[in-house]
Amino acid sequence: MNKKSGSEPDYEIRFRVENLHARYAHALDADKLEDWPNFFTEDGIYRIATAENEARGLPLPVLYAEGRAMLRDRVASLRHANIYEPQRYRHIVSSILIEEAGKNTVKSAANFLVVRVMQDGQALLFASGRYLDRIVVVPEPLYAERVVVCDSRRFDTLLAIPL
Amino acid sequence: MNKKSGSEPDYEIRFRVENLHARYAHALDADKLEDWPNFFTEDGIYRIATAENEARGLPLPVLYAEGRAMLRDRVASLRHANIYEPQRYRHIVSSILIEEAGKNTVKSAANFLVVRVMQDGQALLFASGRYLDRIVVVPEPLYAERVVVCDSRRFDTLLAIPL
Amino acid sequence: MNKKSGSEPDYEIRFRVENLHARYAHALDADKLEDWPNFFTEDGIYRIATAENEARGLPLPVLYAEGRAMLRDRVASLRHANIYEPQRYRHIVSSILIEEAGKNTVKSAANFLVVRVMQDGQALLFASGRYLDRIVVVPEPLYAERVVVCDSRRFDTLLAIPL
Repeated sequence: MNKKSGSEPDYEIRFRVENLHARYAHALDADKLEDWPNFFTEDGIYRIATAENEARGLPLPVLYAEGRAMLRDRVASLRHANIYEPQRYRHIVSSILIEEAGKNTVKSAANFLVVRVMQDGQALLFASGRYLDRIVVVPEPLYAERVVVCDSRRFDTLLAIPL
Repeated sequence: MNKKSGSEPDYEIRFRVENLHARYAHALDADKLEDWPNFFTEDGIYRIATAENEARGLPLPVLYAEGRAMLRDRVASLRHANIYEPQRYRHIVSSILIEEAGKNTVKSAANFLVVRVMQDGQALLFASGRYLDRIVVVPEPLYAERVVVCDSRRFDTLLAIPL
Repeated sequence: MNKKSGSEPDYEIRFRVENLHARYAHALDADKLEDWPNFFTEDGIYRIATAENEARGLPLPVLYAEGRAMLRDRVASLRHANIYEPQRYRHIVSSILIEEAGKNTVKSAANFLVVRVMQDGQALLFASGRYLDRIVVVPEPLYAERVVVCDSRRFDTLLAIPL
């Protein structure tokens, strides 16, 4: 998606995709985890990978979930594990590229940065990387697949929340 | 503003609002504080709050200013206090959501990150959070209200500049 | 470019410019340095400056390259020097302002932030500043001039990669 493509989507589709990315970020940052599965299609795929593994062609994901039911399970586990969750997250998303990928479907690539703010006010860079998405745009835009390619391979605390 | 709304503004309005956010960021980063009040309506409100207080429903703002005159006073105080201001700030704004909110008015939510670069070149995360805005779009877009909801509750140095 | 201008470009041009900025960022972050000169016109100028020097009116750039041939030389030097380059970079670009600047040409200003992720997973703020661009928009958008104004004046490691 680094080259200008002949199959550029129109403004309406671009707007809807950018809007989807923005609502996703705001939902996570507002800790509305229960809304998270609803950004995916019923059988949507969510995958976290490292840039290192992607570059090596290793398909081993750090995390893999398929379908809203699995995403809901993931949220339930997180809620159960994190009774007390004082930190906050802030997603910054930029450099969104969109191209058509079949009927009512687009591919999107975007850069992201997530900042974590601790209870004591300390802020740190929590994660950075790329979103590589396949998005169904009608009747409303939803992720058929969202792959989160993280720049770092350190994932001890990273798995605490969806990215 | 996390749900897709039926009252989505058209491209022209979206463009004007995004342009307002961008010009605001560039003005602050260029230390053009005297221009800052002019991004607001004559009786525009500027408020800094913490995410913690907002979540608790505590209306106590960290900072509150109403009307361009008060904003100008604020700038004058800052200029008086900071004879020598060697640091620089850089605003990053993303995930802008916009929805109509009455005649010639829109609401906007956006994520932001501010980096501070010290005299010696050291860069640090200075602030992150959300802009929650009410914007009058004609004749030119201006903030009728800009609420800066900061993720951190530490504000010792944060009040040095407008966010 | 901080004031609302009468010569705002249309959506099509805005889209093409934002797309150029996004493809540029993704190419660098994917370490596709050999593609980098192709984002410039044949005699395009690439310049890195510090905000401090720009403010003082000192035209001394940290780095200056004119024309694709010089940019290719730069890439060759980087490739030769950095046999082993384990770190990753992530560009975040926001607050893009665009205005017309003659036939088939626009000026663009944008804020950027570059994060560097080291081999051990440590992430740090590598650079921040402004892109000040002159862009030819037809037949395809290319940088006639890209000036990278960095907030920091520390450049020991900064010169390792194009920004």
